[in-house]
Amino acid sequence: MARNDSRRDQLADAGITVLAREGSRGLTHRAVDRESGLPTGTASNYFRSRAELVEGLLQRIVDRLMPDAATLERLAALPPGRESFTRHLRDILRRMLADRDVTLAWFEMRLEAARRPEVASLMHETLLTGFQGDVAYNEAAGLPGGAREIALFHYAVDGLVLDRLTVSIDPHADLDQVVDDLVDGLLPD
Amino acid sequence: MARNDSRRDQLADAGITVLAREGSRGLTHRAVDRESGLPTGTASNYFRSRAELVEGLLQRIVDRLMPDAATLERLAALPPGRESFTRHLRDILRRMLADRDVTLAWFEMRLEAARRPEVASLMHETLLTGFQGDVAYNEAAGLPGGAREIALFHYAVDGLVLDRLTVSIDPHADLDQVVDDLVDGLLPD
Repeated sequence: MARNDSRRDQLADAGITVLAREGSRGLTHRAVDRESGLPTGTASNYFRSRAELVEGLLQRIVDRLMPDAATLERLAALPPGRESFTRHLRDILRRMLADRDVTLAWFEMRLEAARRPEVASLMHETLLTGFQGDVAYNEAAGLPGGAREIALFHYAVDGLVLDRLTVSIDPHADLDQVVDDLVDGLLPD
Repeated sequence: MARNDSRRDQLADAGITVLAREGSRGLTHRAVDRESGLPTGTASNYFRSRAELVEGLLQRIVDRLMPDAATLERLAALPPGRESFTRHLRDILRRMLADRDVTLAWFEMRLEAARRPEVASLMHETLLTGFQGDVAYNEAAGLPGGAREIALFHYAVDGLVLDRLTVSIDPHADLDQVVDDLVDGLLPD
């Protein structure tokens, strides 16, 4: 039987909404059915266990945070250098802040990973793939900075996004300026 | 009636354990009673509403993350400069990572703040007091860096701690080295 991807995505999107709104403890197959408007039992047909549901949500979170083809093309066309790195970083921030539910769901999952080893192991793979992809992309694009610096940017961006989406120490700070400050400080010449 | 602070702290500590273990949706007066081993109804006597419970937990989280007097004295005795700033930052990280439950509870509260305006408003006060305290401390101690740089350190430290306590992109990185890299990059001369 061909997998019905749009139905699967619809369920995963409902799961993301539930996670963002109620936290990981509210995430059940039942809640996903209800949120999606599909008949009771649908989520269990697509995701047989909580682990499968979590895995499906992680995949969907990553998909939704990926840049679209036009953005990728525009970014890839920039000449390599600090300005290009800055534009990439701004774009990541823009995407994470624009899709509030998906980013909050991602943070909820991270906290869930601190409680459940099976979630930690699924997330670890997703997180490492993303991180290593960033490092490889950076190198292939001839951008400055290696794994060590990119790890620092990951920490700073996660903390900045958490600040903006929850309670902020500096809600009126200009995000472009914050990105410039981070790049000035953390990116090697 | 004199407030029984130790009983209040015992309840707040139980609440922190519940938050870290079950997330904010698991945080109820009943769960706090159960976790504390005190009779049912005790938490409601000390914290009349969920807002009071949240406020009590926030105060307790801040208390538990504060450096002890000996540490404060040792840090205050350092000659002002980059080395002192670095040692302060290392100490903050050490405390946040050592008290895993309290730091996870703090992150849970931040996500709860994204969902509930009343939690956001309580947290905003706590967070701003802490941030402004850091800026004032830094200035009074003659340490380098102002509000703008200290905000960057807040973001980076939050992201780094979240990484370490949940799923890490670089679990074997030397934390002292990460702090050095952040200070080298983000602290002005």
